[in-house]
Amino acid sequence: MFESAELGHTIDKVTYGALVPKLREDLLNAQFDLSQQSSFPVILLIDGVDGAGKGETVNLLNAWMDPRHIEVHAMGEKSDEERERPPMWRFWRALPPKGKIGIFFGSWYTAPIVQRVMGKTKAADLNQSIDEINRFEKMLTYEGALIIKFWFHLSQEAQRKRLKGLEKDPKTRWRVTELVWERLKLYSKFRKISEQALRATSTAEAPWIVIEGTDPRYRSVSVGKILLEAMRQRLDHPVTAILSNVPPLQAPLDRLNVFNKLDMSQKIVKNTFDSELEKYQGKLNLLTRDERFHNMSVIALFEGSDAAGKGGAIRRITNALDARHYHIIAVAAPTEEERAQPYLWRFWRHIPRIGRVTIFDRSWYGRVLVERVEKLCSETDWLRAYGEINDFEEQLVKNNTVLVKFWLTITKDEQLRRFREREKTDFKRFKITEEDWRNRKKWNAYETAVCDMIDRTSTEQAPWTLVEANNKNFARIKILKTLCQQIEFHMKKKS
Amino acid sequence: MFESAELGHTIDKVTYGALVPKLREDLLNAQFDLSQQSSFPVILLIDGVDGAGKGETVNLLNAWMDPRHIEVHAMGEKSDEERERPPMWRFWRALPPKGKIGIFFGSWYTAPIVQRVMGKTKAADLNQSIDEINRFEKMLTYEGALIIKFWFHLSQEAQRKRLKGLEKDPKTRWRVTELVWERLKLYSKFRKISEQALRATSTAEAPWIVIEGTDPRYRSVSVGKILLEAMRQRLDHPVTAILSNVPPLQAPLDRLNVFNKLDMSQKIVKNTFDSELEKYQGKLNLLTRDERFHNMSVIALFEGSDAAGKGGAIRRITNALDARHYHIIAVAAPTEEERAQPYLWRFWRHIPRIGRVTIFDRSWYGRVLVERVEKLCSETDWLRAYGEINDFEEQLVKNNTVLVKFWLTITKDEQLRRFREREKTDFKRFKITEEDWRNRKKWNAYETAVCDMIDRTSTEQAPWTLVEANNKNFARIKILKTLCQQIEFHMKKKS
Repeated sequence: MFESAELGHTIDKVTYGALVPKLREDLLNAQFDLSQQSSFPVILLIDGVDGAGKGETVNLLNAWMDPRHIEVHAMGEKSDEERERPPMWRFWRALPPKGKIGIFFGSWYTAPIVQRVMGKTKAADLNQSIDEINRFEKMLTYEGALIIKFWFHLSQEAQRKRLKGLEKDPKTRWRVTELVWERLKLYSKFRKISEQALRATSTAEAPWIVIEGTDPRYRSVSVGKILLEAMRQRLDHPVTAILSNVPPLQAPLDRLNVFNKLDMSQKIVKNTFDSELEKYQGKLNLLTRDERFHNMSVIALFEGSDAAGKGGAIRRITNALDARHYHIIAVAAPTEEERAQPYLWRFWRHIPRIGRVTIFDRSWYGRVLVERVEKLCSETDWLRAYGEINDFEEQLVKNNTVLVKFWLTITKDEQLRRFREREKTDFKRFKITEEDWRNRKKWNAYETAVCDMIDRTSTEQAPWTLVEANNKNFARIKILKTLCQQIEFHMKKKS
Repeated sequence: MFESAELGHTIDKVTYGALVPKLREDLLNAQFDLSQQSSFPVILLIDGVDGAGKGETVNLLNAWMDPRHIEVHAMGEKSDEERERPPMWRFWRALPPKGKIGIFFGSWYTAPIVQRVMGKTKAADLNQSIDEINRFEKMLTYEGALIIKFWFHLSQEAQRKRLKGLEKDPKTRWRVTELVWERLKLYSKFRKISEQALRATSTAEAPWIVIEGTDPRYRSVSVGKILLEAMRQRLDHPVTAILSNVPPLQAPLDRLNVFNKLDMSQKIVKNTFDSELEKYQGKLNLLTRDERFHNMSVIALFEGSDAAGKGGAIRRITNALDARHYHIIAVAAPTEEERAQPYLWRFWRHIPRIGRVTIFDRSWYGRVLVERVEKLCSETDWLRAYGEINDFEEQLVKNNTVLVKFWLTITKDEQLRRFREREKTDFKRFKITEEDWRNRKKWNAYETAVCDMIDRTSTEQAPWTLVEANNKNFARIKILKTLCQQIEFHMKKKS
């Protein structure tokens, strides 16, 4: 992997001087077109060994291009707001919007590689990280991002020389810290592990480009040319559709599905309801005040048919909580800033800090429900969403988040009854819209979508809870009870 | 101020039961209309003495209304991201957008009052905070926000009783901490200082409403009714224009202004330029690596006529910096999320952390320049902007930010020459647009606006630097030199 980056590549001064003016002009033009088209973001990763010219190159790209449309993110120490979220949160919040170039100086590769080199993780952990990274980058590519990954390489001897040189010059001495020398001792281990990581993440969507870091002119022109070509290629040949290899989903041949096996007649009478409500609300309240709650967070999400009673169920939960500790996200149409980002971005931004509860009234599952049925996204988009959502949820769960997913189901008859009832009351919040009636006509299409969703996203780490909601009392108690159980289960597991 | 909140107000159970259902329905309706109109945010402050029912009331409001459109912000410990910015940053980032209700549980009053009670600040500090708060709230009101401020009061005896009661109940015992008892000892001091703060901040725009906290029914219905009436009043009688008392600005009677006193013929020849550029870029680079730089931040903002050379000047600065430490904000039209917030919100979100440089290519001064001349906002809006901007900048400067403001000026003839030159090159980035020619026709109007801006916002803490930019070399050196001087000056002052 690194052999051809140890050959001592160079470009002489004259050639460099002849190449650069045109390269800069072309890069500026490409950047201008990128900004005008605003149809995709460019994500540039700059990684590699210390002293190989990473910083210089980033500065040079800023000097060559228009720095107003480049966002550089140096990923140093995490802030406490970052430490309280899954590790990828800090990268999600820094993703460039469409039309911009984002340079990550230090990236999602840094921690997995460095920790493995330092012996803090095992081979299996690195493999898992690699797997996660591949899925993450694939998602970014599907979402339209152009990802360009540069690895700056130096042979051990070249690195030693380079560091000595930096150390001699008073202007650059500050860059050569103790830590850097420490790391040089681990060179061969670092090389071996990076090579492994690079090989496994050099995918068709986002191959690694290894750059020899010895000669500044050589590395600068190489990076500039590759960046230019990648941008130009994409700008001149916009990707219209990425084909998917997933075979079309098949509805089961009989009519049997998870829903028609439910006992929709279950109910709870008023008296029992009142005492159960008090019991579980009290329990939930105590759980959120438990000492152990300070190290975890809760996300409860609600999906369901129209008029299934999501709002009422949510209120029964929040009534048990302290308003200072929860936040409800009512998912509506994405804003302009959200539309300029990958689909999951607008949910990542609402991930709670520890000790908090976030309730999603509708959620990321919109992708495989309304967006699928109403054809608001392509088939490829919603098909890949199942895997992306599972990956997302895995990160939440790993980060000590109790993720509870409720699907509230009512029968078609019950929905009709509720629609009619709502039409009768003039209490405008409940006005039934044309859209509700339109959705109702697509009952079967929605049912298919929901069954597929349950099949593909009800995982061990984040199972769906189907809630028989024909009887509101029954639904509300089942929800409260489930939520309490999941939190308790998590607390016991951790202690 | 507090006398009528120590009378022992109560509402009996029967009256309460009769009032509440209608109140809840009306509140829900008001909230629904607020969300539909989406024309203003509601900012609710909940402050007052411990144990007076603040938390209970917030929970109740969430239970009575639709919690999906209420954002509760408990302002506890600052995160490190918050500590590195001016104290008001955390409130700005939490402001509710139009159409939503934001409840601040603990607010911009908490720190000034508590610190004064604890003897950590002087009377003059409190007075200054009060002054700042009044201007801040006035700005929010002008921006359309409905601010409702509740102060929950208890007499010392009532507070002692209430705390005893909470302590006895195992469910609420956790709320009565050592700190709470400590604070009770300071009751009369707390009372005196709060009264002073309340009196001085009970403005026409946002009067305080003192609520007696003894009887839960009384305080709940009081808060609900006041909130309802304030919302209803505003929803049914939208504010179309807030009249300003500022007399119209007058251009000076002669033609003399800050610009025609400038010596626009100043230039620097190529050779001198090269050596000066190296000198000041080197100096700037060293300054940003200085130890003392870790405790401060820099904001440099650029305004100027079209074609005055802002972009080129900015690049001469960034070339001297490490790309990891600066961020350039090219100010364009506000996004949808930004339009739902007060004008300055979109600049507050880009305030740098310490140790960083943020460069604004155009800035908040757009309000008093293009928005004034093109009549994109009302006269009142841009007239009040001068004071609001000065307040904003004062907060930055107080927070150890070196704020350097450049106005790049060229003569009308030089602009024409540059426009023509740009038209000749086919390098599309520099394509001259119709808009540029249109702006040029308004040269005089812009000149008036700029002179007013300089007069009103060139303060001792954040003076404007006028840059004679007919000669690009001269302008670039003057800018670099000024920036270095300001940073040095700040470092010396602090050490």
